[in-house]
Amino acid sequence: MVMQFHSDNAAQVHPRVGEAMRDADALNMGYDGGALTARLDEAMSALFGADCAVLWAATGTAANCLALAAMVRLEGGAICHREAHIEVDEGGAPGFLPHGAKLMLADVEHAKLAPDAVRALIDPIRDDVYQVQPRALSVTQASEYGCAYRPQESRALSGLCRERGLGFHIDGARFANAVAFVGCHPRAACEGADALSFGMVKNGAMNAEAIAFFDPGKADRIHHLRKRAGHLQSKGRFLAARILAMIDGDLRLDNARKANAAALQLACNAPDRLLRPVEANELFLRLSDAERAALREKGFGFHDWGHDAAWIVTAWDTREDHVEAFAAALAAL
Amino acid sequence: MVMQFHSDNAAQVHPRVGEAMRDADALNMGYDGGALTARLDEAMSALFGADCAVLWAATGTAANCLALAAMVRLEGGAICHREAHIEVDEGGAPGFLPHGAKLMLADVEHAKLAPDAVRALIDPIRDDVYQVQPRALSVTQASEYGCAYRPQESRALSGLCRERGLGFHIDGARFANAVAFVGCHPRAACEGADALSFGMVKNGAMNAEAIAFFDPGKADRIHHLRKRAGHLQSKGRFLAARILAMIDGDLRLDNARKANAAALQLACNAPDRLLRPVEANELFLRLSDAERAALREKGFGFHDWGHDAAWIVTAWDTREDHVEAFAAALAAL
Amino acid sequence: MVMQFHSDNAAQVHPRVGEAMRDADALNMGYDGGALTARLDEAMSALFGADCAVLWAATGTAANCLALAAMVRLEGGAICHREAHIEVDEGGAPGFLPHGAKLMLADVEHAKLAPDAVRALIDPIRDDVYQVQPRALSVTQASEYGCAYRPQESRALSGLCRERGLGFHIDGARFANAVAFVGCHPRAACEGADALSFGMVKNGAMNAEAIAFFDPGKADRIHHLRKRAGHLQSKGRFLAARILAMIDGDLRLDNARKANAAALQLACNAPDRLLRPVEANELFLRLSDAERAALREKGFGFHDWGHDAAWIVTAWDTREDHVEAFAAALAAL
Amino acid sequence: MVMQFHSDNAAQVHPRVGEAMRDADALNMGYDGGALTARLDEAMSALFGADCAVLWAATGTAANCLALAAMVRLEGGAICHREAHIEVDEGGAPGFLPHGAKLMLADVEHAKLAPDAVRALIDPIRDDVYQVQPRALSVTQASEYGCAYRPQESRALSGLCRERGLGFHIDGARFANAVAFVGCHPRAACEGADALSFGMVKNGAMNAEAIAFFDPGKADRIHHLRKRAGHLQSKGRFLAARILAMIDGDLRLDNARKANAAALQLACNAPDRLLRPVEANELFLRLSDAERAALREKGFGFHDWGHDAAWIVTAWDTREDHVEAFAAALAAL
Repeated sequence: MVMQFHSDNAAQVHPRVGEAMRDADALNMGYDGGALTARLDEAMSALFGADCAVLWAATGTAANCLALAAMVRLEGGAICHREAHIEVDEGGAPGFLPHGAKLMLADVEHAKLAPDAVRALIDPIRDDVYQVQPRALSVTQASEYGCAYRPQESRALSGLCRERGLGFHIDGARFANAVAFVGCHPRAACEGADALSFGMVKNGAMNAEAIAFFDPGKADRIHHLRKRAGHLQSKGRFLAARILAMIDGDLRLDNARKANAAALQLACNAPDRLLRPVEANELFLRLSDAERAALREKGFGFHDWGHDAAWIVTAWDTREDHVEAFAAALAAL
Repeated sequence: MVMQFHSDNAAQVHPRVGEAMRDADALNMGYDGGALTARLDEAMSALFGADCAVLWAATGTAANCLALAAMVRLEGGAICHREAHIEVDEGGAPGFLPHGAKLMLADVEHAKLAPDAVRALIDPIRDDVYQVQPRALSVTQASEYGCAYRPQESRALSGLCRERGLGFHIDGARFANAVAFVGCHPRAACEGADALSFGMVKNGAMNAEAIAFFDPGKADRIHHLRKRAGHLQSKGRFLAARILAMIDGDLRLDNARKANAAALQLACNAPDRLLRPVEANELFLRLSDAERAALREKGFGFHDWGHDAAWIVTAWDTREDHVEAFAAALAAL
Repeated sequence: MVMQFHSDNAAQVHPRVGEAMRDADALNMGYDGGALTARLDEAMSALFGADCAVLWAATGTAANCLALAAMVRLEGGAICHREAHIEVDEGGAPGFLPHGAKLMLADVEHAKLAPDAVRALIDPIRDDVYQVQPRALSVTQASEYGCAYRPQESRALSGLCRERGLGFHIDGARFANAVAFVGCHPRAACEGADALSFGMVKNGAMNAEAIAFFDPGKADRIHHLRKRAGHLQSKGRFLAARILAMIDGDLRLDNARKANAAALQLACNAPDRLLRPVEANELFLRLSDAERAALREKGFGFHDWGHDAAWIVTAWDTREDHVEAFAAALAAL
Repeated sequence: MVMQFHSDNAAQVHPRVGEAMRDADALNMGYDGGALTARLDEAMSALFGADCAVLWAATGTAANCLALAAMVRLEGGAICHREAHIEVDEGGAPGFLPHGAKLMLADVEHAKLAPDAVRALIDPIRDDVYQVQPRALSVTQASEYGCAYRPQESRALSGLCRERGLGFHIDGARFANAVAFVGCHPRAACEGADALSFGMVKNGAMNAEAIAFFDPGKADRIHHLRKRAGHLQSKGRFLAARILAMIDGDLRLDNARKANAAALQLACNAPDRLLRPVEANELFLRLSDAERAALREKGFGFHDWGHDAAWIVTAWDTREDHVEAFAAALAAL
C-alpha cells in the first residue's frame, strides 16, 4: 500500500461531515430554499464577525469563477500570480464562466503577491478600450507554494484594491491551513477581501465549497449566474450541511492544524531541502531523481516538482505512522 | 407535518447510496482518475447493452448543457418542446454553457415531441447564416407532463435526427420512471439517442447525475468543457459511487417503480381529474381553488398548476400511509 | 434587367455619403479618437433634442446586440416579437454577444408589441433563478411588417418598462421610414427608449449603423464590449462621416420619404391585396403562385412570403419608372 | 501641421479603392451573395497559388478571432508572443469571440516566434483537462517589432504545428510589408499557414480586412460565427470591392513598398539608434526625452516607446518631403 502524500483532494471525508449529511437527509426541503442553506449566511457572518452572503458550489473552480464574475465586468480582467490555480489548473474556466475575463499575470516569489508587484503590472496599462482593464485582484491563501499572507499583507493588498477600483478576491482552497498557521482571526486572514472562495474539500468535506461575499449585495446576480452555469444543485441541503459541519466547533481549524502539523514534522526532518517556507500543508523539497525513486521504493507517494524536487501534501487524515516513517526516511537520505 | 407531494428533488437519499459513499471513502484516489469513475463506463455499457462513455455532473442542468455542447456547434441551435425544462427552468444555461446555443421551440400535447412537429419546426428554416441552424433535438423522458416515449417513438425521432443531421439528446431526469412504466429495456427507452442525461437525484441519489454518450468519441471534448465550466469535482469518486449504487441491482428501477406506483394509486382515485396520462411519477389534476385549499388544510403539500389544477409528484420514499390518505382525500372531494 | 424590389439593403449609396467619405479621407486621425466620431454625440443630441451618446457599428446585428448588452445582465433576457429580426435573422447573435441573453417571444399582430402583450409574457415569470428574468424590451420601428409605432404607443411601452425595470431598446433598422410616415419629431418616434439602433444602411448609407444611448452613462461599458467583440474599426472616421452625412440636412428623412412614397404608390394600386398596413417601405401582398410568376416574367424582382404572398421592399433609389411599371402591373392583375 | 508618423491606421484610402467602391455601387446585389464577394476566393487563390476560401471582416481583431475560432475548440488555447497584438491590443477579444480561447504567451526577441520557443512553452503542458491544451499558433507577419518571418521560418513553424496538431494562424496586419521586404511569393511568406488575416486597412484600404483559409473546409462554420458575432455586413459588396482593389495589379505590394522605403530611408539616417531591424514600415529608435521633444517641436508626430525610445510608422501615403525632413532631422540630432 502506498503511503499517500499526493494531494489533500484525495483525503477522506471527516466523520462529522458524514453525520451532518445523515441529519440533513431527515429534512425534506428540496432545492436551495432550505433552512440549512439559509443558515450558511448566519454561520459565516458569525465566523468572520462581518455580514456576509454565502453560496455553496461544487468546486473551487466554480467558486473562484463565480466570485470573479461579480467583479470583472464586460471589459475587465483579473490580476493573479502566474502560477495561480485559476491560471494554471482550471482549464480556462476564468476565461469562460465570467464571460471572457482575462487573467493578467504577475510574477513574485513564493506565489505571494504584494502591492508593488500589482502596481508594476497595472501601471503601464492604458485606460482605453484596446487594453483589458484590471477590475479584480485574486490571491491564493495559502499560496500555490504553501505560503500564508499575514493580516498586514492582506490589508495592504486590499488598500491598493480600494485605491485602484479593483475587487479583491481570495482563493482560499487552503484558507483554514493559512489561518491555522498565522494564528489570527479568520477575517484577519482575508482582511479587506470582497469575496472569499472558502475551501472545504481539501480539508475534510465532500463535494462542497463556499463562496463568501463580504459585500452581500454582490451575491444577488451571482445566484442567477450560478444557476445559468448549471451549478445550482437540487438537494442543496447536503452541500450546506457539509459546510456547516466544517464550521461548527471549528472542525475546519482542527483539521487544518493536523495537516499543518504533519507538514511541519516533515519539514523539520529535511530543513536543508526546503525550497519554500512551510506555512500550510505543502512542502516543496529538493530531491534528486535517485532520492525520489528511493522514497517511492519505500512506499511513499508524492508528485514530482520539476526535475529536482518533490511536491508533498499532507491532509487532516494523514496517518501519524506514515508521517513518522516519511520523516525518518527523509532524515536518512 | 406536511405530507410532501411537492417534488422528487426533495426526496431522501436511498440508504444504499449512503453506504456506497462510505465505501468510497475508504478509497484514496483523488480527482477523476479513480477506479470508481472508471467503472461507470463499464456499468452503463452493460446496462444499455451498448458502448457508452459516461461523465458525472452535479446537476441535470449541467448534464443537459454538456450533452448539447457536444452536438450544437458554433452556428447551431437545439429543438425542444416549449415547456421543456431546458427552456423553462434552467435559467438560460443552454444559451450560456454551449456557447450561445439557441433553443428552437416546438409545441405538442403532453410535451411529447413527434417527428411531424419537429419537421414543421425545421422545414421552414433556410440553410443560411441568418437563421440559426438546428443541430440537435432534445426531448425529455418522461416528458415535463409525466408522459413516456415508447420505443417506437424514440426510434422514429432518432430516424428523423439521422436524416436531418441532428444530434439526439434525451433529458432523462425521470428516465428510470419512464423505463419502469414502459417496461422495456433501458436502451429501448432512449433508442437512437446520442446522449442521455440520466437522472439520479430525483430517484434517490445525492448530488450526482450521469451523462451517457452512446457515441463515446463525442465525450472527449466534453471532458474538457466540464472542467472549463467548473464541473469537474475533486473527490469525484463519491459521485461515481452514488451513480453506481443506483445502477447496481436495479435500485434505480425499484425506486422508480415505487414512485410510479404511488402516482398511479392517486390517479386511480381521481380518474376524472387527470389532465394528462400518468406514465411516470407526476400527476396533473384538475382541482379548484377551494379543493386545493381543502387538501392543504388536511396536510397535503403540492404545487399549483395554473389556476384550476395541481401538480403532484411522488418519489421513491413517499410514505404509503401518505399516499393512502391523499388518495382517500382525493376520492372524497 | 431585373427591376429590384427585393431589399433596401441592396440600395445604392447616396452620393452625399460618398462625398462625405472623400472629405473624411482628407483628415488624418486614426482610430476612434477623431473629430468626426466626436461630432456624432452632438449631432444626434441635436437631432433628438436629448443628450445622447453614440457609437457606430458595422451592422444592425452588432448595434442591436451591443445595445441589449447594456441592459441585459448576467441573469437576464430580452422580450421581443416572435418574428423580430433579432430572433429570426441574426444567427443567434443576441444569445452570443450579450453573453447568453435569452430572447423571450411575444406574439402580436403586425409584429407590433403593446403593453398588454408584454405583460402577458412577463407576468407568469417567477422571480427566481430558474427562470430567465426579463431585463429589456426590444421593439422594431418600423416593425418587421412595415408598421410604425405612434408616439403614444412608444410612450406606453416605455412606461411599462419603467414600471417593470426593463431597459427599452428600439431596433430602428427602418427608423427614418417610420418617422417619415408618422410625421413626428424623431424623439417622439422612440419616446422613452434607452437605446436606439438607428439604421443607416437600408436608407442610403454604406456599412455603418448608429447606436444612440439616451442614458449616456450606459454607453461606457459598451465601448469596451464593442472592442472586445471586434467591432471597433480603425479609420472609424469613415463610419462617422457616413452617419453624419445621413443626418445633415435631413438626408435620412428625404431618402425615407422617397422609399415610403414608392411603397404607397404600389399599395394604392393593389389595395385589396394588402396583408398589412403600409406604414413604411415594405408591402406584404396577397399574390398567387401564378401571379408572382407573371410579375417576375415581366421583370419585377421580389421575395416570396409564404405560399400565397409576396414581400416587396422599396428603397430611396427605387426608380420611378420601375415603380410606375410595377404599379401598373399590379393593377392589371 | 503635424507631419504624421504615428500610425498607418490613419493613412488615407488609396484612390483606386475609392474607384472600386464607386464601381461596386452600380451593382445591386444585397448582402453577401454578390458577385464581388464570390470573386474573392478566386482572386486570393490566384494570388497565393493555392485554393483558399476568403471572408471579409471589418477589423483585424475580428479577422484574427474568427480565424482562431476555426482552430481552437472547446478546450483549447492559442500560442502567441507576449507582445502580440491579440494579447495586448484587442481588448480581450480572443478570449471572447472564440468562446474563451486562452492565449499562451511565449517570449522571444523581436516578437518573432521560432519552433524552440513554442516547444519550450508547450512541452510542459500536461495532456489533461486541468491545463488548457494548445490548439493553435498565431504569429504576426511582420511582427509587432516590424520584423519579417522568412519562408524557411514560416515553414519550420508550420512543420511544428503539423507535428503537434496545432492550427497555424498568421496575423498579417502588415503582411504586404513583409512580403515586399522579403521579396518572396506571398504564399512563401505564410507557408504552411492554415489561415491568414490579410491586412488591408493599414495599407491603403478602407474598413475591410480579409481572412484567407488555406483549408477551405475550415471556413464553413466561420461563416456562421461571423454572422453570430454581428460581423456579416449587408452591402458587403463594398468590402469585397475594397479588398479586390488592393489585390488587383499588386496595389497592396506597391503601397507596401512605398511605406517600407520611407521607413528604410529614416533607418539609414539613424543607424545607431535602431533598436530592431527594420524589415517593414516600423522603426523603434533610441531617442531621449529631449530628442523626442526637439523632433516634435519641429513638427514630427510619433509615439513614445517606453522612456527612451520612439515608435515611428510610415504608410503608403507618407509624403516624401516629410520623410526627407524627418530623415534630416534625425541625422542632425
